[in-house]
Amino acid sequence: MSRIAVIGAGAVGCYYGARLAEAGHEVHFLLRSTYDAVAESGLHIESVDGDIDLDAPAIARTSREIGAADWVICALKATAMDEARDLIAPCVDERTSILALMNGLGIEDQLASWFPGTPIFAGLGFTCINRGEAGRIHHIDYGPVTIAHLGDDEAEIGRGAAVWADAKVEVPTASSLLAARWQKLCWNVPFNGLTVTGGGITTDVVMGDGELRAAADGLMRELCAAGNADLEEHGSSARLDADAVVESMMTRTATMAAYRPSTMIDFLEGREMEIDAIFEAPLRRASELGVSTPLLAMLTGQIRILGRSAG
Amino acid sequence: MSRIAVIGAGAVGCYYGARLAEAGHEVHFLLRSTYDAVAESGLHIESVDGDIDLDAPAIARTSREIGAADWVICALKATAMDEARDLIAPCVDERTSILALMNGLGIEDQLASWFPGTPIFAGLGFTCINRGEAGRIHHIDYGPVTIAHLGDDEAEIGRGAAVWADAKVEVPTASSLLAARWQKLCWNVPFNGLTVTGGGITTDVVMGDGELRAAADGLMRELCAAGNADLEEHGSSARLDADAVVESMMTRTATMAAYRPSTMIDFLEGREMEIDAIFEAPLRRASELGVSTPLLAMLTGQIRILGRSAG
Repeated sequence: MSRIAVIGAGAVGCYYGARLAEAGHEVHFLLRSTYDAVAESGLHIESVDGDIDLDAPAIARTSREIGAADWVICALKATAMDEARDLIAPCVDERTSILALMNGLGIEDQLASWFPGTPIFAGLGFTCINRGEAGRIHHIDYGPVTIAHLGDDEAEIGRGAAVWADAKVEVPTASSLLAARWQKLCWNVPFNGLTVTGGGITTDVVMGDGELRAAADGLMRELCAAGNADLEEHGSSARLDADAVVESMMTRTATMAAYRPSTMIDFLEGREMEIDAIFEAPLRRASELGVSTPLLAMLTGQIRILGRSAG
Repeated sequence: MSRIAVIGAGAVGCYYGARLAEAGHEVHFLLRSTYDAVAESGLHIESVDGDIDLDAPAIARTSREIGAADWVICALKATAMDEARDLIAPCVDERTSILALMNGLGIEDQLASWFPGTPIFAGLGFTCINRGEAGRIHHIDYGPVTIAHLGDDEAEIGRGAAVWADAKVEVPTASSLLAARWQKLCWNVPFNGLTVTGGGITTDVVMGDGELRAAADGLMRELCAAGNADLEEHGSSARLDADAVVESMMTRTATMAAYRPSTMIDFLEGREMEIDAIFEAPLRRASELGVSTPLLAMLTGQIRILGRSAG
């Protein structure tokens, strides 16, 4: 059993942390705004894969209280990346590995620069989770977390996945972290983006409109092209198969309930959206690589402006 | 001097009708919601090209009261096209010509099918006009109306422009109505569209954002490609020069005050937007012609969804 620190206890951090606690790991949650509510009433997950009730989870107000852990799961919102270093550092010693369960491109490189020598992993969740009232999480659909390793070391990938062996979470592995990140963007960019520009629509509305569905398709193909150029420049032999990515994303989204992506909820509730991680970073990278991404560029400009008025 | 009926007395109809009245024409305005206010207080234009105060303009509640005219200026919102035939018919006899001072593609063909034998013209305004309180119009910037003729008859174009000879309105002429319509869309699609998807931003915000400006550029190029295919299919030798169109539109928009396009105001005020005329019609036409217009398609899907929730 591992000692695990969950930094950033939003819906994603709470859900997967609770699944690891359920599997017997010693899981510590760093809480801020919800500390008092969870101290009072515990942490409760309503899940299509079985509810979890942690009546007295191990919670802390500071990372120092948690101290060094075998695994630090960083599930901060990408907009809080500035705080990540200080929040993570007290939980890191020579035994520690870090798993970034976040959206975005370049997160792992950033973590590696802050914590040299610490193994860095990515966890790419494909799941529908929303936060309810404090301490309550609704897990609506899906749930796999793809495990990847910065360095793409096969043994390390296995070690990263092994932590989840007894947890009720599917953990497929990705041999290329970079490919997995671009593939994840192939969902987040169109569906987080077009649900926001639609004024706060759900994923089924995007899927049900011929032009928006075609735009999602086109965005995925642009991202695959940029991702493949990025992989090539990194000397990786991994490649994204655009047809396969589009088919897989569309199939999964078509069977998904009418879903409210996190960015769309942030938009409707006037909170800061993960604009840099999901939109600006891939656009910058595509531009550096000389890959034309006109749909991504337009969508990024649109979201940027909407974020400005919301912020 | 001509007897002129202005059907659809929004900002555009009132402004240009007042300019023609100022030049000495006998101008009759068909008014509905603003009839009482204008009967009481007149029609007042605050204009960068000189104010106009019509204290007792010729106004009517029905087209029948106006009767046959030399010119019918149809300045209805494109969303009211269903009513256009009944509103125009009482003003048409064998002496009448019709000028469509409206947004959209295919408007003139529609009018020709309703009024066979009647000369049909297009007036393509490039102007910044907003409605104030009832009977008050604010003309902020620009003002030319490009005159074109359905049939592209040179003598007719000259006759159409001659009506405006003494009016304080520049009337350049277009040798190809179809080219002029597509060229006008090159402004309306990006600027009416992107100001709406921005949540109600002004044109200067689009111009000031690198990605949105690039999207406007890309949209114009898609529209030029579709327009040129349309011209070719119609056997016209006219062509749009995309570079020239982009440069001209960008230059004009850059020097424009922070402008609120009509569609953006409609969106913010929860009124029906001219979605079919400005977005759906060119998208359908491009699709029929087999011209790829991914940015137009995405923007159309976005506006369509926003229009649904507004409507």
